[in-house]
Amino acid sequence: MKRIALFPGSFDPFTKGHEDIVLRGLKLFDEIIVAIGFNSGKSVRYFDVNLMIDRISATFKDYPNIRVVTFSELTAEFARRNGANYLLRGLRNTTDFEYENSIAQVNRYLNEELESVFLITSPQFASISSSIIREVHRYQGDVSTFLPYKL
Amino acid sequence: MKRIALFPGSFDPFTKGHEDIVLRGLKLFDEIIVAIGFNSGKSVRYFDVNLMIDRISATFKDYPNIRVVTFSELTAEFARRNGANYLLRGLRNTTDFEYENSIAQVNRYLNEELESVFLITSPQFASISSSIIREVHRYQGDVSTFLPYKL
Amino acid sequence: MKRIALFPGSFDPFTKGHEDIVLRGLKLFDEIIVAIGFNSGKSVRYFDVNLMIDRISATFKDYPNIRVVTFSELTAEFARRNGANYLLRGLRNTTDFEYENSIAQVNRYLNEELESVFLITSPQFASISSSIIREVHRYQGDVSTFLPYKL
Amino acid sequence: MKRIALFPGSFDPFTKGHEDIVLRGLKLFDEIIVAIGFNSGKSVRYFDVNLMIDRISATFKDYPNIRVVTFSELTAEFARRNGANYLLRGLRNTTDFEYENSIAQVNRYLNEELESVFLITSPQFASISSSIIREVHRYQGDVSTFLPYKL
Amino acid sequence: MKRIALFPGSFDPFTKGHEDIVLRGLKLFDEIIVAIGFNSGKSVRYFDVNLMIDRISATFKDYPNIRVVTFSELTAEFARRNGANYLLRGLRNTTDFEYENSIAQVNRYLNEELESVFLITSPQFASISSSIIREVHRYQGDVSTFLPYKL
Amino acid sequence: MKRIALFPGSFDPFTKGHEDIVLRGLKLFDEIIVAIGFNSGKSVRYFDVNLMIDRISATFKDYPNIRVVTFSELTAEFARRNGANYLLRGLRNTTDFEYENSIAQVNRYLNEELESVFLITSPQFASISSSIIREVHRYQGDVSTFLPYKL
Repeated sequence: MKRIALFPGSFDPFTKGHEDIVLRGLKLFDEIIVAIGFNSGKSVRYFDVNLMIDRISATFKDYPNIRVVTFSELTAEFARRNGANYLLRGLRNTTDFEYENSIAQVNRYLNEELESVFLITSPQFASISSSIIREVHRYQGDVSTFLPYKL
Repeated sequence: MKRIALFPGSFDPFTKGHEDIVLRGLKLFDEIIVAIGFNSGKSVRYFDVNLMIDRISATFKDYPNIRVVTFSELTAEFARRNGANYLLRGLRNTTDFEYENSIAQVNRYLNEELESVFLITSPQFASISSSIIREVHRYQGDVSTFLPYKL
Repeated sequence: MKRIALFPGSFDPFTKGHEDIVLRGLKLFDEIIVAIGFNSGKSVRYFDVNLMIDRISATFKDYPNIRVVTFSELTAEFARRNGANYLLRGLRNTTDFEYENSIAQVNRYLNEELESVFLITSPQFASISSSIIREVHRYQGDVSTFLPYKL
Repeated sequence: MKRIALFPGSFDPFTKGHEDIVLRGLKLFDEIIVAIGFNSGKSVRYFDVNLMIDRISATFKDYPNIRVVTFSELTAEFARRNGANYLLRGLRNTTDFEYENSIAQVNRYLNEELESVFLITSPQFASISSSIIREVHRYQGDVSTFLPYKL
Repeated sequence: MKRIALFPGSFDPFTKGHEDIVLRGLKLFDEIIVAIGFNSGKSVRYFDVNLMIDRISATFKDYPNIRVVTFSELTAEFARRNGANYLLRGLRNTTDFEYENSIAQVNRYLNEELESVFLITSPQFASISSSIIREVHRYQGDVSTFLPYKL
Repeated sequence: MKRIALFPGSFDPFTKGHEDIVLRGLKLFDEIIVAIGFNSGKSVRYFDVNLMIDRISATFKDYPNIRVVTFSELTAEFARRNGANYLLRGLRNTTDFEYENSIAQVNRYLNEELESVFLITSPQFASISSSIIREVHRYQGDVSTFLPYKL
C-alpha cells in the first residue's frame, strides 16, 4: 500500500525549513501532499495563497510524488479523504513540541488511522519561522536567504 | 474556616480537562467557584457565555459545593471579595507552567493571602485545549469526546 | 477527615525553598509529614540524616502539625500507611515540572487515592537546589543564606 | 571603540524587569539605546508612546549614556545605522529563550556584526510581563509595584 | 528497497511506552530492529540483559519483522552495518526532546544516511520511564502495569 | 577598567561550541580566562586535564587576551581573586537555560559583583555536548568534526 503523508500548514510563507522536512520526508513516504490550510472567505494571509502554490510547486517541480493543494476543512478529515495515513511535521524547539503534542493527540481522537510523524528541523533552519519572515519582509528586509524560491 | 477556591478561566468551552481539575480539587477544598471571566461589552467568545454557565452548572448539578459565576474584574480582587484564599489551576505542560508561574507571582503581589494551587491534568486530558476544540468545532468536527456535557 | 500531606524528599540538605513550600502547604493541610527518603544500608548522603532530622525539627518546632520522619519504602506505600492522601510538591522550573509530572502519574497508578498537589516555589528561592548547596559547601562556600537553620 | 548596545522592545509598558536589564547592561556597554519599536500609522498600543518615552527618560535621567528613542524599521538595520553592535536582551524563562533564540539567529543573518547578549532577569522581576501589567491596569489594579516610575 | 529502522535503547526494562512506539513504527517501516545497547564488560544493568531479550522477543513473537538484538558499538555504525537508514525514537516530553535533538544531529554527522524519525508517546504511557520502574521495583512495588510482559 | 570574564567548565573535552562562545565573547570582554574546574584528588575525567590545557592553549595561541587555567575552588571565589566581574556562558537549549538560571542566581548570592553574561550557541554547534563526544570517542567514533584541535 502506498504511504501517503500530508504536510499541512499555512505556509505564509513556505520556508527552507519546510522544504527540509518535505525532502527528508520523501525517504519515509511514497507521496507527500503539501496542504495549505486556506479559507477564501476567512483566512487573512500576508503572502497571497496563489503565489505560494506557484512557488512551492516550482520548488518541487522535479518531484512527481509531491503535490501542492489547498484545503479548508479539518486536517484529520482532509487526510482521510485523500488516503493519507500520516501527518508529516517538523519540530524546531520545545515550544513546537508542546503544541504539536496536543495537536497530534487530538488528531488521533478524530481519526484513529492517522499517525503523526516528526522530524527535527535541521539546525541551520531551526530559527526560521514564517512569522519572523513576515516581520522582516514587512520592513523591507531581505528574506531570500530563508526561502527556497524567489518571491 | 471554610477553604474556598476560585477556578477562573474563560472556559470557551469548559472541557473534560477542566472537569478533571475541579473534581480532584474537591478533595482539597470545601467549596469551588468556577468563575468565567467575562465582560459583556468586550469579551469576544466563540461559545455563548450563558450556554456555558448552563452546561457547567449541569455538569456539577450533584455537587452543592461547586458554584458557577461570571466575573469581570481582577481575579485577585474577585477572589478577595468572595472569601476565596486559593486559586485552583491545572497544569498540562511546560508552556502552561511558564505562563502560570508568572500569573501566580503577580496574583500574590496583588493579594498576599491568595495561594495558587496546582494539579497536573490527567494524561488522557492533557492534550485538550479550548482553542483546539474551537478550531475543530469551527470545521464541523465532533467535539463531544472532549466535553463533559452535550453542547 | 484530617487532611494529611506527605512532603517527601532526600533533603540533602533541606533548604529555604523546602521550608517555603511546607509553610505555605499548612494553609491547605491539617498535618504535613516531612519524610526523608533514607535507607541506612544504601543511601549515600552528603549531610548526615540525623543532623538533618534535628535541623528540620528545630525549624518547625513551633508547628505541632509538622512531623519529621525517615522512610525507606515506596512513597505511595508510605503515604498509604500514614493516612496521607496528598503529596505536597514544589515546582521551581520546567525541568522540575517534567520530572514531577512523570512521578505524579506513576504514584497514582500505585495508589489511586494519592493526589499530588503542587505549589510554585517563591521566586527568591527558585534557584536554590540541594545539589548546588552541596557543591558550594564542598568548596567551603557560605551556604547559610540558603538554609532556614544553622548547620 | 565604544560598545553601543540596543535594547529594543515595545515597552508597553517599560517595567522594573526592563530597568533591571538596562542597569546591569551598563556594566557591559558604554552606551545603551532603549529603542521603542513604534510605527505611528500601525502600532496599536495600550500605553501612549510619548508617555512611555517620557517615563523611561525620567527613569534614567542620571545616566547620560542611556538614550531613549523610537524606531520603525528592522532592528538589525536600526542597530547598524546607530553603530550598535550588540542587542541587549533579558531572559525570564524557557518560553523567552525559545523565542529569543530564533530572533537572535535571524538577526545575525541580517547583520553579521550584530551580537545578541543575554542577561537572566533577576528572580524578583521574572514574573513581570508587559502583557500582564496591561491586563491588571485594564481592571484598575495597582501596577505601581511593577514599574520604576509613576504612570 | 526495504525500510529498516533501528530502535535503540538500554531497555532496562523495556516498557509499554517502548512497545507503543515499536508497534506504531510498523506502519512506517518494513522491519524494526529493537537494539539493546549492552557491553558485557561495562554495562551495569538492573534487569538482566538475557531476561530482557527473552521478554521483548516474546512480546513481539507474532511479528516476524521485529528482531531483538544487542549491540556494543556506536548506534550510527551499528545502523549502517545492518542496513538501517532510520532511527525510530519516542518523545514523551520536552526533556526528551532536548536530549533527542542533540543525539539526532550528532548521529547525522556520523552517518549522513541515517534519519531519526520521532513518534510522540501515547499519553497513557508518557509518564513511564525505565528509571522510575527500576525505582518502584527496587522497593517491591508492582510494576506489571507498566510492562507488556510478565517479569 | 579592564573587563575580565571567566569562562568556567570541565571541558572534558573543550568543543567547537565552547570555542564559538569564547571567540564571540572577545567582542564583549578585554580578557577571557578559560578556567577548567579540576581537583587533582577528586575529579574523574575522560580526557586528561593536561592534554586539554595544551589543546585549548593551542587553539587560542593567536589571542594574547585568552588565558587557560585550572581551578579547584568556588567559581564565584575564583572569579573574585582574578578580578573577573563576569561569567561568560553559552546557552544551547532550554535544559541549559534552567540549569544556568539556577547557577547564575546562586553565584550572585556568593559574589554580588559577578554578572553572568549569556550568548546563545550558534546553531551548527548547539547539538554538541562534551558528554556525547565522550560517548562517541569511547566507541572509537570520529570526533574530530566536533573539536577545534586535533586530539
